[in-house]
Amino acid sequence: MKVVVIGSGTAGSNFALFARKVDRKAEILVIGKERTMQYSPCALPFVLSGRIEKLENIVVFPGEFYKRQRIDMMLETEVKEIDRERKVVITDKGEVSYDKLILAVGSRAFVPPIRGVDSKGVFTLKSMEDVSRIQAYLKERNPKKAVVIGAGLIGLEGAVAFRELGLEVLVVELLPHLLPTMLDKDMASIVQKHLEEKGIKFKFGVGVSEIVGDPVKGVKIGEDEIEADLVLVATGVRANTDLAKKAGLEVNRGIIVDEYLRTSDPDIYAIGDCAETFDAITGKRTLSQLGTTAVRMAKIAAINALGGEEKFKPVFNTAITELFDLEIGTFGMTQERAEKEGIKVAVGKFRGSTKPEYYPGGKPITVKLIFGMDKKLIGAQIVGGERVWGRIMALSMAAQKGATLEDVAYAETAYAPPISPTLDPISIAAEMALRKFK
Amino acid sequence: MKVVVIGSGTAGSNFALFARKVDRKAEILVIGKERTMQYSPCALPFVLSGRIEKLENIVVFPGEFYKRQRIDMMLETEVKEIDRERKVVITDKGEVSYDKLILAVGSRAFVPPIRGVDSKGVFTLKSMEDVSRIQAYLKERNPKKAVVIGAGLIGLEGAVAFRELGLEVLVVELLPHLLPTMLDKDMASIVQKHLEEKGIKFKFGVGVSEIVGDPVKGVKIGEDEIEADLVLVATGVRANTDLAKKAGLEVNRGIIVDEYLRTSDPDIYAIGDCAETFDAITGKRTLSQLGTTAVRMAKIAAINALGGEEKFKPVFNTAITELFDLEIGTFGMTQERAEKEGIKVAVGKFRGSTKPEYYPGGKPITVKLIFGMDKKLIGAQIVGGERVWGRIMALSMAAQKGATLEDVAYAETAYAPPISPTLDPISIAAEMALRKFK
Repeated sequence: MKVVVIGSGTAGSNFALFARKVDRKAEILVIGKERTMQYSPCALPFVLSGRIEKLENIVVFPGEFYKRQRIDMMLETEVKEIDRERKVVITDKGEVSYDKLILAVGSRAFVPPIRGVDSKGVFTLKSMEDVSRIQAYLKERNPKKAVVIGAGLIGLEGAVAFRELGLEVLVVELLPHLLPTMLDKDMASIVQKHLEEKGIKFKFGVGVSEIVGDPVKGVKIGEDEIEADLVLVATGVRANTDLAKKAGLEVNRGIIVDEYLRTSDPDIYAIGDCAETFDAITGKRTLSQLGTTAVRMAKIAAINALGGEEKFKPVFNTAITELFDLEIGTFGMTQERAEKEGIKVAVGKFRGSTKPEYYPGGKPITVKLIFGMDKKLIGAQIVGGERVWGRIMALSMAAQKGATLEDVAYAETAYAPPISPTLDPISIAAEMALRKFK
Repeated sequence: MKVVVIGSGTAGSNFALFARKVDRKAEILVIGKERTMQYSPCALPFVLSGRIEKLENIVVFPGEFYKRQRIDMMLETEVKEIDRERKVVITDKGEVSYDKLILAVGSRAFVPPIRGVDSKGVFTLKSMEDVSRIQAYLKERNPKKAVVIGAGLIGLEGAVAFRELGLEVLVVELLPHLLPTMLDKDMASIVQKHLEEKGIKFKFGVGVSEIVGDPVKGVKIGEDEIEADLVLVATGVRANTDLAKKAGLEVNRGIIVDEYLRTSDPDIYAIGDCAETFDAITGKRTLSQLGTTAVRMAKIAAINALGGEEKFKPVFNTAITELFDLEIGTFGMTQERAEKEGIKVAVGKFRGSTKPEYYPGGKPITVKLIFGMDKKLIGAQIVGGERVWGRIMALSMAAQKGATLEDVAYAETAYAPPISPTLDPISIAAEMALRKFK
């Protein structure tokens, strides 16, 4: 059995490692464009801010590690085409045959066609090369004013990094609030307030119409020109689907896979950012594009490609981030999206403290829970000074098992005075929603 | 409708507050022995250590708060008897009639019949009065050497408090390791090592046969006499069942209740430390005696006593503590208890880091998961430098929804570089257990 993986990122590298665990004998080959195997793209903002000392540190394992597990690698290699009839991959270094093929070809930064977007001083934050380029520019030109286009996760993490480096930072977002797919406006405003306190400015509901100067010296927003000597474009990513399309595989916004992560060709799997899977709440097709989803897909595809049978469960898109002194955790459906899609929901919201009142050092925490009219937990948003991650983990894992309103309201939680209150904010938020059914 | 609650502790006070939410009109009366309504007994060690500044701080709400919610209180009142025929409670201040009666009479420290146990300088750590007494003794006699009898949660939290106050501390435990009901020996040894590094000494598998001197000047362990000028007896608690027994209610180790928390008299409920409910893993009767259990029981009993119908779910005994720089979280069945009860289990254990390797500041964390042969998650033990609480919360809430090995191994977790690894230690531990089914 020869398994060929196209893509050496999180999905591809993890696939190879899991596949080796599943099958000690299979031939496993990873073909990658980049110079290294898997590194952590989510860590890039933290390299930029200097919290992670060296860019090379974010390469998860050295090449030796894969070699020891008898994983073959063809790095710095471009795949031109897949010949499904002959079951070969055609690369710039020759042809490679496969029994099972894994597409882990990832995504690329989406750069909107703004005038001046190719100027010096305009960057994306998607790859190690992006960070190298930004770092060289910071050193060379010592910019003072950054504009970040897009208030999604990468945009905000980039904004925080620039702010930590001492730049003035303005974030421009077309939609009415920050983290628009993860949070509702009421929750986003808590985050916005905190970032503003740290010196980050925001403009919502407007777009950058032009980037002025080369090197960049400003951006145009409507009639206004705003000074900027560094621009970060963080307007989302697009799945890499060209190779799959060319090979005649079924493609939508991503490469379409079934619940076993097989493409329309049963010998070809797709995993990670390029693969379009199912949303746990709506049942509709979705691009998850999270590191955790890539790893889970890698696990499940490794089992299936090597003869096993394990279903990949629809995704809740559980996510967490830390922006200065706030943790923000979410999964599932927001209230705004529910309204847009005409889904009726019951919402429970509670603002409390992370510790019992009598214990010093508690921090504010706000929990917002979204329940379907069948009382199923379909979304959560938590913003707070600490212990947000644990709560979003607990709620997400409960939701993954079909938790209901009562399950959360009467949940058994873990309590100790230095850590959490006896009656947890998640249970109180659920009780708030429960009242709406009375 | 007149609801009378005997006991003003966590269970009783919370019952009154929930009952008021359920029913705006019902007459609610709490009869309590103590001077105040609910305070947090779990906070007592932190008052002792000085982390919580004042003893009064741990009283959760002032009396005014209950009055505003039209909760009547008869405090510093002793209940002598319950006359079930006439439906009256007989107190030292007269008779009180009830329609529904709630027994929230709590538990008391169990003090083994060791010679000298009544001497000056020997304490338990169960009530506000205990802390007042210890604080007075510390001030008066400035003791240097503490012996703690019992290495359960209260014993260890007390030991840490004494150590933080600068005393030499020896913990003596009859069983072979610390936290014997919560952890297996392998996990307990991680905790022991940390506490020893902080200067706490241990003796296992031996008991204190005598307390010498009055005021105390030592303890006898077998043939050895060990110097000590303060002794803390932390050998567990016993449910208060006398009143229920006298009233002819069914009593075992605690007051027996059904899944609606009703005693053998349908107009009388029992909640909190005094009530014997069901263990989620074994299905057998158990005394949970956790603050969270008391609060959950209060919620459910409030619904049921006022005409609703909600089942109290069997308990997993999810617990967390912080001892110096370690968090320790557990729930459910330990491997040792499973062996003792002849239950076959599959164990997965993994030692990793709380953050990705490339992110600075990660701390060691060890996850041990216990699965039944039906692959159900029936227990977890986690010891680590941070983020233990979140993991035990997530695992417990998943277990409460019947999570299996695969649910944990392929769980969707929440990842961000400053917070957690892409592939969470809980999932890796589950994979370790999964191998045992192959």
